[in-house]
Amino acid sequence: MIKPIIGNIDFIESLRGKKATFMLALSNTKTANIAGITQAGIPKMMHLTPTLDSEFLCSGEVRSLENIAQTPKGVPTPALITRAVHLLAPYSRIEILDLGLEVKPKIDYFKIHNFNIKPSQSIAKKAEINAQELFEKGVAFGQEYEPQDEYIILGESVPSGTTTAMATAIGLKYKVAECFSSSFKDVPNNIREQTLKLALSHLGEKDDIFTVLSKVSDNMLIFNAGFILGLNNKIKIILAGGTQMASVLLIVDRVLKLMGGTMETSNLALCTTKWVAEDEHSDLKKILEELRFPIHAYYSDFDFSLSQHPALKLYDQGEAKEGVGAGGSLVYGELNGLCKQAINNKVEEFLK
Amino acid sequence: MIKPIIGNIDFIESLRGKKATFMLALSNTKTANIAGITQAGIPKMMHLTPTLDSEFLCSGEVRSLENIAQTPKGVPTPALITRAVHLLAPYSRIEILDLGLEVKPKIDYFKIHNFNIKPSQSIAKKAEINAQELFEKGVAFGQEYEPQDEYIILGESVPSGTTTAMATAIGLKYKVAECFSSSFKDVPNNIREQTLKLALSHLGEKDDIFTVLSKVSDNMLIFNAGFILGLNNKIKIILAGGTQMASVLLIVDRVLKLMGGTMETSNLALCTTKWVAEDEHSDLKKILEELRFPIHAYYSDFDFSLSQHPALKLYDQGEAKEGVGAGGSLVYGELNGLCKQAINNKVEEFLK
Repeated sequence: MIKPIIGNIDFIESLRGKKATFMLALSNTKTANIAGITQAGIPKMMHLTPTLDSEFLCSGEVRSLENIAQTPKGVPTPALITRAVHLLAPYSRIEILDLGLEVKPKIDYFKIHNFNIKPSQSIAKKAEINAQELFEKGVAFGQEYEPQDEYIILGESVPSGTTTAMATAIGLKYKVAECFSSSFKDVPNNIREQTLKLALSHLGEKDDIFTVLSKVSDNMLIFNAGFILGLNNKIKIILAGGTQMASVLLIVDRVLKLMGGTMETSNLALCTTKWVAEDEHSDLKKILEELRFPIHAYYSDFDFSLSQHPALKLYDQGEAKEGVGAGGSLVYGELNGLCKQAINNKVEEFLK
Repeated sequence: MIKPIIGNIDFIESLRGKKATFMLALSNTKTANIAGITQAGIPKMMHLTPTLDSEFLCSGEVRSLENIAQTPKGVPTPALITRAVHLLAPYSRIEILDLGLEVKPKIDYFKIHNFNIKPSQSIAKKAEINAQELFEKGVAFGQEYEPQDEYIILGESVPSGTTTAMATAIGLKYKVAECFSSSFKDVPNNIREQTLKLALSHLGEKDDIFTVLSKVSDNMLIFNAGFILGLNNKIKIILAGGTQMASVLLIVDRVLKLMGGTMETSNLALCTTKWVAEDEHSDLKKILEELRFPIHAYYSDFDFSLSQHPALKLYDQGEAKEGVGAGGSLVYGELNGLCKQAINNKVEEFLK
């Protein structure tokens, strides 16, 4: 079932039966190399996670490493969910946005948009992003993009992306520090807080927006904020993610405020998982309520209650919550006739 | 299973796997306010039925009243069937035709075509329809309509619509009085016959077609006859209904005769339910045989034999038969891979 977080159900119901383009935005930030800051990947191989996620989503195979990304506790990547939906109710097309990858995915025939973007530095070391140029690349991409389907679902894979999203929100002076999730159940507050504190200490009182973003943000957040503005409401787009996608919207909001501008957002929504929407350690709704423009937000109530698989049960226990557009994909699956049992079974097949 | 009523199976088989636009034509006639004339709705709230049906079909929610339309005996609206199919094998899009509603549906994001049409008066009081103008609006809509899918399924929700359909057929001098169904099992012949008699008594010997329609018809019938002529065979269209949709075709037939014209009907068909096609109190096939043009007609053999739910069993007992495009939707579901059990289960979910 699809449930509203903000707004009524009509936006998403109007997309029932319609096909979407799935875009996967990938980037690396060296923030992920800080020991213990994220569990989205394999220790020492964290930087490979977006590469492997995109390979698995597109081809069903993991090519740049022997095994599909697993966290130390054995939580399988949410790419399994996105891939399962794609097998059962396929997207019209999948397109990859390379927003600064250490290792290019080994995929043929799929559209990989390349913007000559480099992985960003750790936010503990001022990130070193050319934020304005990156933002402008996003705007240009949105302006030039010619929609091929009725709507776009935009997912992401950025290891340690929730940390950079949180730094971004605080750096832009939104009062939402308590609202951010982590992909850890036992939120590793010490490492994260130390990193955040250090990152934010680099900000000066008079830093403008783009200077702030250049120091504490990540490529995915900045580019996609530009992308959304560049699209200018010409096609319906679903941001498929939790607090990271909410931070993309905070950047949009902050830029609009800077320009004294407004944006038509009737074609914009956010979709996430039940694990994010009902998470007690974060508050997505409250972040979205900071926005000065109206937004629709939904979640799928899919969970692994039908599964006996211990690795999948970890999702229901809060060990992993979102990523690779899993929430948006679950919503897409439901809009195209899939039931919980079918998705559950398909995900389980991958683990056999 | 899809079974032919008239013609071979090829028309409908050629649509297997193809996506459709579902159009729901809604109107009110004050004929429905005559006590006991219809059970399609809640007493005193009969006029809300099309509004509630469209809200439920599009959003899964009933917004203009607390509960979904139920008849006094507790027969749930056939909108449940149409919605169930839409959840399992979604239409590409749903569009609403407002052909004169008392209360506008509370739906965002869905296309609602507005033609500035007012609800019609009771046929006991000469209906007061500007039939020629209404017909011309239908023709113009058909001419201007740009198909977005491979075919259209056109359903309706018009309380007491079978009575106005019968008055229309008789008023246009088709010898089909015995062929009309009612949504009642125990057809309330007295109230209906009195109403029909009164309505038909207003017709003069020399009344032309549009004068007849203005006195004894309803907006849905007249507009859609124009719509079909305006489409002029440019896209396949399935009239999803029983005797009401047959009366739309009688109007088309009568207008063609008036003009001495012919119409290519190779893209035109009618689909209904088993409850209509096998109804002993009516004879859809015989009505269709009055037409001077060839037509395909089919029905789905779906019934609630797999259900134990007493409210749904009422369909199998003849208490309700068709509406909100239920028959056409069942055919669409079968053309897109749905089985009886899946549809049955989904409808039952709504009643939990």
